[in-house]
Amino acid sequence: MLTLFHQPLCPLSRFVRLALGEYRLEARLIEERPWERRQEFLQINPAGSVPVLIDEGEPPICGAGVIAEYLHETRNGREPLYPADPGQRAEVRRLTSWFNDKFHAEVSGFLASERVFKRHMTREQGGGPPDTDAIRAARHNIRYHLAYIGWLVRTRDWLAGDELTYADLAAAAHVSAADYLGDVPWSEDEAAKAWYARVKSRPSFRPILAETVAGVPAADHYANLDF
Amino acid sequence: MLTLFHQPLCPLSRFVRLALGEYRLEARLIEERPWERRQEFLQINPAGSVPVLIDEGEPPICGAGVIAEYLHETRNGREPLYPADPGQRAEVRRLTSWFNDKFHAEVSGFLASERVFKRHMTREQGGGPPDTDAIRAARHNIRYHLAYIGWLVRTRDWLAGDELTYADLAAAAHVSAADYLGDVPWSEDEAAKAWYARVKSRPSFRPILAETVAGVPAADHYANLDF
Repeated sequence: MLTLFHQPLCPLSRFVRLALGEYRLEARLIEERPWERRQEFLQINPAGSVPVLIDEGEPPICGAGVIAEYLHETRNGREPLYPADPGQRAEVRRLTSWFNDKFHAEVSGFLASERVFKRHMTREQGGGPPDTDAIRAARHNIRYHLAYIGWLVRTRDWLAGDELTYADLAAAAHVSAADYLGDVPWSEDEAAKAWYARVKSRPSFRPILAETVAGVPAADHYANLDF
Repeated sequence: MLTLFHQPLCPLSRFVRLALGEYRLEARLIEERPWERRQEFLQINPAGSVPVLIDEGEPPICGAGVIAEYLHETRNGREPLYPADPGQRAEVRRLTSWFNDKFHAEVSGFLASERVFKRHMTREQGGGPPDTDAIRAARHNIRYHLAYIGWLVRTRDWLAGDELTYADLAAAAHVSAADYLGDVPWSEDEAAKAWYARVKSRPSFRPILAETVAGVPAADHYANLDF
């Protein structure tokens, strides 16, 4: 049995939930609030961050990228999320990191922290009113990422090539967190929107679309497959 | 023939150079100044960052972690830098990411940018006087990372277990960039110091120790194996 420590609007946690869904793996979900720095959790992951996957008898698998490699190595399904060629895999990893690292640092990390996580934090944990400059920067930055997604899928079926890969799951996970908050300017890029509609309609996406976060209502169109 | 776009005091570039050295691979080195956002380089890596490895006939391999996976998959030597067991590999990846992401964000990225890269940047590129608060924070943060290294190697031969792995190369790469600048408080942890002395004496480290950066002299003890 797998167990996943996650946080609902954390885009890195969403990425792992989508990967588990694509591999048709069930995992027990435990909602962790990393900002509380719970001692038992710090013993599992000294970095104190989510996601963390527990696979009994193994060391804790810490971090979105590390979990992706682990699932690929141990639970690779009939439709793998990496292509067979090492050069093509490098391209998938480049784009996965683009979203899990760069998009997270420039857009989705700010939005989730400032608009959601901070509400639950005490002042000592870093809580307080949202930093409107950070939110404004995130809403500015998302435009060029959306244009990049659109540019990629105008020449390819999926972000990294002919097949759905981890790159699509990473991009969609981060976009979905911003979309929950109504912060994706969909009218700016039709190709990006059409790509997201395709990913969003996969069965792996359903649990994420069905979930709402207490005190933070989802944008009206969030769960709508025809948005 | 391999080509590596790198920057001498960039710890992520150093990590890749150490990995190439351990695999006994020669690569042509091209010094890239990412802050200049050279058009030809942006076409190779749209993220604009180093390191980038070029392996003829393949897409560009962008980013330290992506390069590590690629070398493992295509150039795995007699002494691999990942263990054979997937759970143990996850532990190596956790620690590699600890240094390439966390240590970089809290220590070595600040030090390299504020103390070195900014000197070469115009005001438009983000240049200007060093941010002394950022440098002070990095010098504060390095203490707990050094303690973590020390804690790990008091119970294991190398950071992630019985063998040298990518985790040791990542940690040593980031520590070496800080050490060049004289910002490692070695007297604080004897075990961490003894571990670094072992990594530093490997042949893969020689080119990095021999290199100096124009205008930024290395700390006196930097290249000394008995520091």
